[in-house]
Amino acid sequence: MLKLWLQTHREDPTPLFATHQVGVSGFVLNEESNEVLVVQDKNRPYTLWKFPGGLSNLGEDIGDTAVREVFEETGIKCEFKSILSFRQQHQHPGAFGRSDFYVICRLKPLTLSINACSDEIRQCKWMHISDIKQEVESSSLTKRLADMMEFGLANGFDKIDIHCEEMKSVYKGLKFKLYHRPFSLQKSTD
Amino acid sequence: MLKLWLQTHREDPTPLFATHQVGVSGFVLNEESNEVLVVQDKNRPYTLWKFPGGLSNLGEDIGDTAVREVFEETGIKCEFKSILSFRQQHQHPGAFGRSDFYVICRLKPLTLSINACSDEIRQCKWMHISDIKQEVESSSLTKRLADMMEFGLANGFDKIDIHCEEMKSVYKGLKFKLYHRPFSLQKSTD
Repeated sequence: MLKLWLQTHREDPTPLFATHQVGVSGFVLNEESNEVLVVQDKNRPYTLWKFPGGLSNLGEDIGDTAVREVFEETGIKCEFKSILSFRQQHQHPGAFGRSDFYVICRLKPLTLSINACSDEIRQCKWMHISDIKQEVESSSLTKRLADMMEFGLANGFDKIDIHCEEMKSVYKGLKFKLYHRPFSLQKSTD
Repeated sequence: MLKLWLQTHREDPTPLFATHQVGVSGFVLNEESNEVLVVQDKNRPYTLWKFPGGLSNLGEDIGDTAVREVFEETGIKCEFKSILSFRQQHQHPGAFGRSDFYVICRLKPLTLSINACSDEIRQCKWMHISDIKQEVESSSLTKRLADMMEFGLANGFDKIDIHCEEMKSVYKGLKFKLYHRPFSLQKSTD
């Protein structure tokens, strides 16, 4: 597209082409054992235990990316429950000068037997949630999420979940996913 | 960039260029009058009362976009408080075939006198929160947000807020903004 903006009294309002990539990971918690699914990437300069995940394909919903990437990397089948947190990172390495949204989802495992992808994953295991917090080789973000899930286990996931709902767009034929805290119009009693 | 992926046993893992644009709006509530700042866009085929906002510049944080766009469109100065909700819309009109994240922030007005941008805004006014819910010319998303803020007014904004915190990246010298529900590691008493 070639264009020339002729008005001098105001800025060119033409939108920039897309500014963000979207990466999604799954916090997969086995609620019977309090173990979490963690991986080490194979092709990275650093070695950190992290949650399995990867980039969204164009047109893919956040929860679908989480479920797909966890299965591709670890062989574990999951069900999407909620969004727990998201990070906005500018000048993200490998994002072609654009920014990165990284979204961490709460997933419920439907299977437990690991079958890791040997192309992408150096190691994969179930790690007790309290061990993540002691682990030298995990990031402050990973530890923060472990803290948050411990809070959720003690007080109910409804205290930390960001829920997803499909709604109709004002643009005919289009639908979207809306994410926010669950609420009811009755006065809260808690 | 030109490339050729030679492995036939697995898919090309090269990331796609950025897949999302990010639009941000401000839910600006005057808590003394329960009035909300709403606008009608000038250059749209439809006429809907909506929250003021616009697209993030490359490298701009969500809260900064909200405060900037509300000021540019309405002349109202605000302080960022939290994220209330976000929407993911694929095939978004005007997004060059990419997807759209639309983030609605809770903003506290620091001034109240409207000075709307005549290039972009057809009408701008303070509307009582209960009138938004009755308004024919507002979308289901706008009404949902009004419901949610009424819930927040009755039960505390801490029930609906998604908080923002700056943290250090594992990538040296980089920082990021992390968004999630506030929590404390002490057992919740509510």
